[in-house]
Amino acid sequence: MQGPDRPADHAGLRKANLALVLRALRSDGPQSRARLARMTGLNKATMSSLVAELEQRRLVRLGAVVGGAIGRPGQLVELRPRTVCGIGLEANVDYAAVAVLDLSGDLVLHRRVPTDVAGLGAVGAIDLLAGLAAEARRTVEAMGGWVAGVTAAVPGLVDVDGGVVRFAPNLRWRNAAVVDQLSASLDLPAGRIAVDNDANLSAVAEHVTGVAAGATDLLYLTGEVGVGGGVIADGRLLRGATGFTGEVGHMPLDPSGADCGCGRKGCWETQVGLGALLRSVAEEGDPIRDPSLDLEKRLATIVSRAREGDKRTLAALERIGAALGVGASILVNILNPAAVVLGGYFAVLADWLIAPAERELTARVVATGAEQPGACRLLPSDLGFTAAVRGGAYAAMEHVLTDPTLAPVPAPGNRWELVPAQSTVDSRR
Amino acid sequence: MQGPDRPADHAGLRKANLALVLRALRSDGPQSRARLARMTGLNKATMSSLVAELEQRRLVRLGAVVGGAIGRPGQLVELRPRTVCGIGLEANVDYAAVAVLDLSGDLVLHRRVPTDVAGLGAVGAIDLLAGLAAEARRTVEAMGGWVAGVTAAVPGLVDVDGGVVRFAPNLRWRNAAVVDQLSASLDLPAGRIAVDNDANLSAVAEHVTGVAAGATDLLYLTGEVGVGGGVIADGRLLRGATGFTGEVGHMPLDPSGADCGCGRKGCWETQVGLGALLRSVAEEGDPIRDPSLDLEKRLATIVSRAREGDKRTLAALERIGAALGVGASILVNILNPAAVVLGGYFAVLADWLIAPAERELTARVVATGAEQPGACRLLPSDLGFTAAVRGGAYAAMEHVLTDPTLAPVPAPGNRWELVPAQSTVDSRR
Repeated sequence: MQGPDRPADHAGLRKANLALVLRALRSDGPQSRARLARMTGLNKATMSSLVAELEQRRLVRLGAVVGGAIGRPGQLVELRPRTVCGIGLEANVDYAAVAVLDLSGDLVLHRRVPTDVAGLGAVGAIDLLAGLAAEARRTVEAMGGWVAGVTAAVPGLVDVDGGVVRFAPNLRWRNAAVVDQLSASLDLPAGRIAVDNDANLSAVAEHVTGVAAGATDLLYLTGEVGVGGGVIADGRLLRGATGFTGEVGHMPLDPSGADCGCGRKGCWETQVGLGALLRSVAEEGDPIRDPSLDLEKRLATIVSRAREGDKRTLAALERIGAALGVGASILVNILNPAAVVLGGYFAVLADWLIAPAERELTARVVATGAEQPGACRLLPSDLGFTAAVRGGAYAAMEHVLTDPTLAPVPAPGNRWELVPAQSTVDSRR
Repeated sequence: MQGPDRPADHAGLRKANLALVLRALRSDGPQSRARLARMTGLNKATMSSLVAELEQRRLVRLGAVVGGAIGRPGQLVELRPRTVCGIGLEANVDYAAVAVLDLSGDLVLHRRVPTDVAGLGAVGAIDLLAGLAAEARRTVEAMGGWVAGVTAAVPGLVDVDGGVVRFAPNLRWRNAAVVDQLSASLDLPAGRIAVDNDANLSAVAEHVTGVAAGATDLLYLTGEVGVGGGVIADGRLLRGATGFTGEVGHMPLDPSGADCGCGRKGCWETQVGLGALLRSVAEEGDPIRDPSLDLEKRLATIVSRAREGDKRTLAALERIGAALGVGASILVNILNPAAVVLGGYFAVLADWLIAPAERELTARVVATGAEQPGACRLLPSDLGFTAAVRGGAYAAMEHVLTDPTLAPVPAPGNRWELVPAQSTVDSRR
């Protein structure tokens, strides 16, 4: 319990005020010092001192000069690009990935490695992630930047506080000590390395950027082998009592349905997961069902066939879209989000999935029956397969947004200059 | 956006500090002024002045004298019972109800009127509620108390800001202007009259008191004709983008199932709502299915039959318990609550419903498959059919907990004395 006039210690107050300025710049863009002072309720002298410290720590820089209608012209303070960065990692069934974002949210680097991650086992897969993180860090440091933290996304039940993936059915991981293994090979304090559920991190990314950015209530659905959900409610990630919210893939919608990776039958992901899609659109032997081929290429083939009007493809997409809508209607009735953001393959095939899904949603969501402006939009993500890694990178930057004094002050005579970033997108095979 | 050292105006700060003291007393019970000062971070002189004002407004009183191990003995400050009260109302399919709680959470008055509310139409039913509220207010004022506000609970989609029930399928209400009609007949500012969803208000009551009190993540399920859900997530009521969370009764769990009040087929409430129970346990013509008899008596008959081992009754309860567990598993997978509190008839028949429901829950909740301490408990509410009205009364008291200066200072020479409360529970027929 904290009283409104409880005296905070000086260092704590300073840290909180530095954080306040960074968050104001992140949410509202570049500002003059005078405007920052008004926004935060701090006085101008304090603001000048805070901005000077943030500049020294290379978190902000002074940019364009603006002349206001009233008063002296001032320089805009902006988040410094390509300096302080967060690294996001992802292990999924058939790929591993890394992304680096800078403080302003720009994608500095993204690399996706299609490979049979499940076949590597947990230790092998985490090694692959550690290698991707080390490589990304070298890139950041070569351009004069500093890594605030690393957060890995995994499709499964994650004990965030313990840094352990408890159970990832589609990866076949149990009790994988992701944070311990990553910190053993990365020279970063363990407190700045984390692991979280992929759908949670994707929801964070969609909340910050993307098609539903800023919506205080949104649901993100992963369209992968497993179908997971990440929920932003009232502007915050919904975690639940033990951190296991959003296990939407295992809603029992068809008691006589197909076997699921979780050991049950007829779960929603047996109807709308990536496996269901591939089985539904093509016969065995069709290259679409060849797991040795890159998923993006196989999805592109499905898109071509749908565009050409191939009947089997269209019927399968119609069926999957309807099943997507039935499950989404349950989630919308429970959570009442402003938008459901469709990720993974759902976004790639959105042109064919959204119409049948919306028909089911309109028919089943109680709030739309009230002729209310409560209608929820189904929106394909425009972050592609990068939502989870971006969310990881955002989460990794939270360390410095909460305590900006973590960012080191460069030694005198060792003032980094801003160099152009290496932004690479790499895809094997 | 508010800076940590933004200067608040004096009156605003005073109000916030008065509220802080009230909330501290509510969450932690009676305290000495010295301890209150430590808890809130305020100095002792300020605390003495705040307590004096709260005493003058009859929100607190000075109670027992305690002698501490260190320092002078002091009097305990406690919330004053039976003075400032909140009124909760409820319109449900076959009853209307009112409850009065005082600041300390004691039930001062509860009255439940079994009647065909749906048959009255919205205007008639709201008139009935207004009458119950006026009667409750007279009781409060006769004992020297003051009414902080009135909040009505309705099973339907509620536009809380507008004070309108958009759609209550089982009451057959559409766009019922509950707040306008109540304020026209109650002499209270409209800002202190509200309407909210019954499951939301029940969840609030369960969060404050009852079997899962204090759980930061809980789900309340109404066991009425309709089945609604109220969600407390991270200590706060989950409202969603447009206030329509928790519409759990219409999960489409059986496409070939029975017709639902919402116009669809096979919704969860057609399997586990009160109507399904009554049809399932008894033939037509059985008094259990006679809507002119009091529901509590009919439920008592079902309990007797189950106790006597009546096979039809037991088989029906087993079936309904399993269906309850299947639906609850979806909700637990999505929301990850620490407890699901079962209200209404679910609580009355919990002895027979919980075992089959828990079997389904254990089989279907993904987090339990991880051998995690994430297991969610199914708990019968001990608030009986009073959860929603209690939640309404708590919500109505929020006005004075947010701004204690709303509570009037009695005129000099008109100092109310504490009189014993009339606590009545009344049930017609």
